[in-house]
Amino acid sequence: MADEAPFQFLHQELIQYIYKSKEQGEESGRNITKLENLGFRVGQGLIERLTKDTARFKDELDVMKFICKDFWTSVFRKQIDNLRTNHQGIYVLQDNTFQLLSQLSAGKQYLDQAPKYLAFTCGLVRGALFSLGVKSIVTAEVSTMPASKFQVMIQKM
Amino acid sequence: MADEAPFQFLHQELIQYIYKSKEQGEESGRNITKLENLGFRVGQGLIERLTKDTARFKDELDVMKFICKDFWTSVFRKQIDNLRTNHQGIYVLQDNTFQLLSQLSAGKQYLDQAPKYLAFTCGLVRGALFSLGVKSIVTAEVSTMPASKFQVMIQKM
Repeated sequence: MADEAPFQFLHQELIQYIYKSKEQGEESGRNITKLENLGFRVGQGLIERLTKDTARFKDELDVMKFICKDFWTSVFRKQIDNLRTNHQGIYVLQDNTFQLLSQLSAGKQYLDQAPKYLAFTCGLVRGALFSLGVKSIVTAEVSTMPASKFQVMIQKM
Repeated sequence: MADEAPFQFLHQELIQYIYKSKEQGEESGRNITKLENLGFRVGQGLIERLTKDTARFKDELDVMKFICKDFWTSVFRKQIDNLRTNHQGIYVLQDNTFQLLSQLSAGKQYLDQAPKYLAFTCGLVRGALFSLGVKSIVTAEVSTMPASKFQVMIQKM
């Protein structure tokens, strides 16, 4: 009976709340930043809880695999479908059925709405990585909804 | 592996966000209202999803039982521990281990912080009831954390 819906609906209302409380215009960038920052802190909290009994990670790739499997499952009930890397600090995480876009209809007409549905999760990944000692920049893109790609660029500390 | 933590952490950050974005002082009442309103809309969304295949409810008590069992479980992974009513439109729902207070330490020193951790859930219940055709006022109180009592006063429409 318990499911991921409370999180989904709360995320949805959070976006509405943040976008409504500003008087529009070019504020959009700031709203994205706010969502990203909120995600960052949620990601930190979640990963600390999730890794408290976990052995240390071997290397960066090991950390990324944990994000793709355990972390993603704890939030979205599924694993990342595909992980690629150039072995030079760039990772691409692909989720073919990204849950937080599932409330938007498929099709190209809502593609311009996608960034606000991805910002929180970019922060989530960045926060989780940060707490594991990996500093990064995380961006996202959607080409065919609800498939989403998250690109992680590792920043050498 | 999947659990309620994403919802909990997001709720926590939402409170922080709303309280931080105001410059304090007597704004506190407005923040409570904002959290309540956000909860209201999440409650509406959740109950519509949850009841889409449910038969009609017999009466008000039947609705309240659904809130205490199915609805509460879908959000908090447990049922309400105790439901009481005066049979004149007042219901008291008691949760002895209210999840959204579990991040606050037990003890009396944080009791004054409790209202902001309860406001969202008051709205959640009010929104769910509203979507089932029951107009209400919902308030909450805590005497011993994390046990919480939600009082529902039915408003005749």
